[in-house]
Amino acid sequence: MKFIENGSVTSPKGFSASGVHCGIRKNQSKKDLALIFCEKRCTAAAMYTKNLVKGAPLTVTKNNISDGYAQAVICNSGNANTCNADGVEKAEITCAAVAKKLGISEKDVIIGSTGVIGQPINIDAILSGIDPLVDSLSDDGNAAAEGIMTTDTVKKSFAVELELNGKPVKIGGIAKGSGMINPNMATMLCFVTTDAAICSELLHEALVYAVEKSLNMVNIDGDTSTNDMMTIMASGLAENECITEKNEDYFVFAEALAALAIEIAKAVAKDGEGATKLIIARVYGCQTDECARSLALSVVSSSLVKAAMFGADANWGRVLCALGYAGQDIDVTKIDVSFVSDAGRVEVCKNGAGIPFSEELAKQVLVCDEITIDINMNDGMEYAEAYGCDLTYDYVKINGDYRT
Amino acid sequence: MKFIENGSVTSPKGFSASGVHCGIRKNQSKKDLALIFCEKRCTAAAMYTKNLVKGAPLTVTKNNISDGYAQAVICNSGNANTCNADGVEKAEITCAAVAKKLGISEKDVIIGSTGVIGQPINIDAILSGIDPLVDSLSDDGNAAAEGIMTTDTVKKSFAVELELNGKPVKIGGIAKGSGMINPNMATMLCFVTTDAAICSELLHEALVYAVEKSLNMVNIDGDTSTNDMMTIMASGLAENECITEKNEDYFVFAEALAALAIEIAKAVAKDGEGATKLIIARVYGCQTDECARSLALSVVSSSLVKAAMFGADANWGRVLCALGYAGQDIDVTKIDVSFVSDAGRVEVCKNGAGIPFSEELAKQVLVCDEITIDINMNDGMEYAEAYGCDLTYDYVKINGDYRT
Repeated sequence: MKFIENGSVTSPKGFSASGVHCGIRKNQSKKDLALIFCEKRCTAAAMYTKNLVKGAPLTVTKNNISDGYAQAVICNSGNANTCNADGVEKAEITCAAVAKKLGISEKDVIIGSTGVIGQPINIDAILSGIDPLVDSLSDDGNAAAEGIMTTDTVKKSFAVELELNGKPVKIGGIAKGSGMINPNMATMLCFVTTDAAICSELLHEALVYAVEKSLNMVNIDGDTSTNDMMTIMASGLAENECITEKNEDYFVFAEALAALAIEIAKAVAKDGEGATKLIIARVYGCQTDECARSLALSVVSSSLVKAAMFGADANWGRVLCALGYAGQDIDVTKIDVSFVSDAGRVEVCKNGAGIPFSEELAKQVLVCDEITIDINMNDGMEYAEAYGCDLTYDYVKINGDYRT
Repeated sequence: MKFIENGSVTSPKGFSASGVHCGIRKNQSKKDLALIFCEKRCTAAAMYTKNLVKGAPLTVTKNNISDGYAQAVICNSGNANTCNADGVEKAEITCAAVAKKLGISEKDVIIGSTGVIGQPINIDAILSGIDPLVDSLSDDGNAAAEGIMTTDTVKKSFAVELELNGKPVKIGGIAKGSGMINPNMATMLCFVTTDAAICSELLHEALVYAVEKSLNMVNIDGDTSTNDMMTIMASGLAENECITEKNEDYFVFAEALAALAIEIAKAVAKDGEGATKLIIARVYGCQTDECARSLALSVVSSSLVKAAMFGADANWGRVLCALGYAGQDIDVTKIDVSFVSDAGRVEVCKNGAGIPFSEELAKQVLVCDEITIDINMNDGMEYAEAYGCDLTYDYVKINGDYRT
C-alpha cells in the first residue's frame, strides 16, 4: 500500500469531480458546491453524526443509500441546511436536479451540507450551480475538495494504491474540517471513492473499522457537529474479484482504507480552527483498547494541554490531569510521559512524578508543528493514538463572530 | 435567609482568618498562604475531586477529617503539591507545624494547595509563613480569600444569615477559580464555615446537596483539577438545637448552604480564566432532573457556544448542536431558545427551527456581562441551571505559558 502523490477522489477508476461557486457564500472567489460522479453505479456505505440534531442532508442520504448503492455525491458549503422546516424538501429537490442532469436515479445521490445552522438554504443558488457543476466534471479532484471547505485553510485530498490479488486498486478521499469536531460519535464531512469491487455490507464494515482508528480519534473543540458524515462509493472498475467475505483481500482493503482515513484525520486535526500545530497523543501499555483510546482522546481534548502546546510549555502536569479524569481505572504511579517531535525527545515524567529535564530541549521539541505526547501506562499491551491541535487566539477569533 | 454585605468565612461565630506572602510565589505582592481557624473544634465534612490524579493535600485532609472533626484550614497557592514523591510528607509537616503554633491537634487540620502540578513545593517558604499567618489572625476574611487565589482576578468571599428555630445562624465561604474547572466530578477549592450546630453526617449530606446544585454545575474549560476540594466546618457557636436528624432546621440550613454555594459558583464562572461574561444555561421542561442538568452543562461547556457569546453572536444553532450531543433522549422539534440579559429578551428558535428576530436587539442582549440562555424543551417539568463563561483570547494567553 502506498500514498499517491496529489491523489484525490478522482484517482480510482470511473470517478470524476468538480466544484463551483454558486452563490451560497458571498465571497465569489470561494467555491461552495462540489460534485463527485461515477460512470458506474457503486456499492456504497456511510456513517453519520450521532448528534440528535441532524442536518436534513443526512436524512435524505440515509434514505437514498438504504439499498446499498449510489452514483454521485453533491455537497455545498456555507450553510448546513439544519434546523430549517423545509430542509429535507430542499435537499430532495437538489438530489432530483443533479440526478436529472447526470441521467441517473435521484435515489443514487448522496447529499451533504456544511456551514451555519438554522438559516434557510438558498436553493436557487444551488439549482443555478448544477449545470456548470456537471459540465465541468473532470479527473481533477481539487475543485471538489475546495467546494466543501468551510473554515479550512488547506484542502484535504488524499489517495492510496494497493493490490488485491494482483489487481491494482485505488482509494481516494476528500474531507473538510475544521470546527465542531469531536470524536466518539461520528466524523466531519469526508467523501471516499474506490474502484475496488466490494459488496455494500463489507464496504460498511471496512468503513466502521477505518473510522474508529482515524476520524473518531480526532478532537478539535469537543463539539460534535450536526452534519458530520463519511461516505464511500466503490465502482468495482479495478476488476478485482468482488469482496463478499472477510478474506485476505478484505483485510488488505480495510487496512488501506484505515491508513487513508488516518492521513485525513491528521490533516483535519492539523488544520483545526486556529491551530498552529498537530498534537498526537500516543498511549501505550494499557490493559484494554477502550482504555487506551479514552486516555489518548482525553489528552488531545484538554483545553489546558492544547493551550500549553500553543505556548510550547512542557506543562506535563496537565497531561497527567487529563489522564486522571478520563474515567478509566489507571495506576497513576506507573505513568511515564515524554514529548517528541522532529527536534528530539524529552522525558518529563517517570512513575507519575516529575523528573529533571532540560527546559531548553523541551522548548525546542515543542515549537515544532507536529508534537507527539508519548504516554506509557506500563500496565498492559494495548495502544491507541488520538489527533488534535493546539488552542490559539485564532480559534476564538474564528468562532467569536462566525455568522457575520 | 439573606446575604451579608462583605460577608466571609469569619462572619460565623468563632472563626478568624489570615493570609500572607510566604515565598511560594515570586511576586511578593501576591499572598500565597491562607489560614482559617475556629476557637472551638468543629464538626466537618468535605468533597474531593474525582480525578484519579489527586493532590497530596487531599489525601492528608481525607485522613485528618475521617473522624468528622476539624478546627483549621491551611491552604497555599502557587503550587498544587501534586505528582511529587514527597507531597504527602510535606503536607503532613505543614499540618503539624500550624497545629503546634495554634495549640490544636494536627489531625484537626484541613490542608489545600493550588497551582502548578508536578513541581516540588517549597516547604521552607510555607514553614516560614506559619508564625506570621497565625499572628495575623483576625475577623477580616479578605486576606485568606486573597491567599488562595491563582489566576482569579477577583476574590470570592460570601456569607449568608438564616434562622434556625429562632437562633441566628451564619454560613460563610471563600473560593478560588478559575481554570481546570469542570463539574460532574467535584469542584474548585472552596472553604465554608458556619456557626450552626450540626452533626458531621448531616453536614456532609447538606454539602453534597449544595454542591450538586452549584459548583458541580460550573464548567470553565472542561478540565477537572487534581486538587479540587470543598470543605465545611461547623462550630455550633450559634447555639441552635444541634441538627442530628433531617428536620425542618436541616432543610433550611441545606437550602441556605446551597444558595451560598450557587453565589460562589456564579462568581467562579464569571471570573473564569479570560472570561468577560457569565453564561447561565437555564433548561426547562425536561422529563428528568438528570436530563435537565446534562443539557444545561452541555450548553455552557460548548467551546463554540462560548466563543459565540464572546463575540455577542446570536448563533443559536450551536446551542441546538450542544443539546443534540448531550447524550439525552430529546425531541428536537419541541425546543425553544431565547437569549436574555439586562438589555432584554430575544427569542431565536421555536420548535427546533429558526424564527425571524432583530439582530440589533440580539446584539444589545448579548453584549451584556451576564447572559442567560433560556431553553424550553417543552417535554416535562424538570429544570436545571448551569454556569459558565465565554471563551476569549485571554484564556489562551493565560494558559499558553502558565508555568513561566
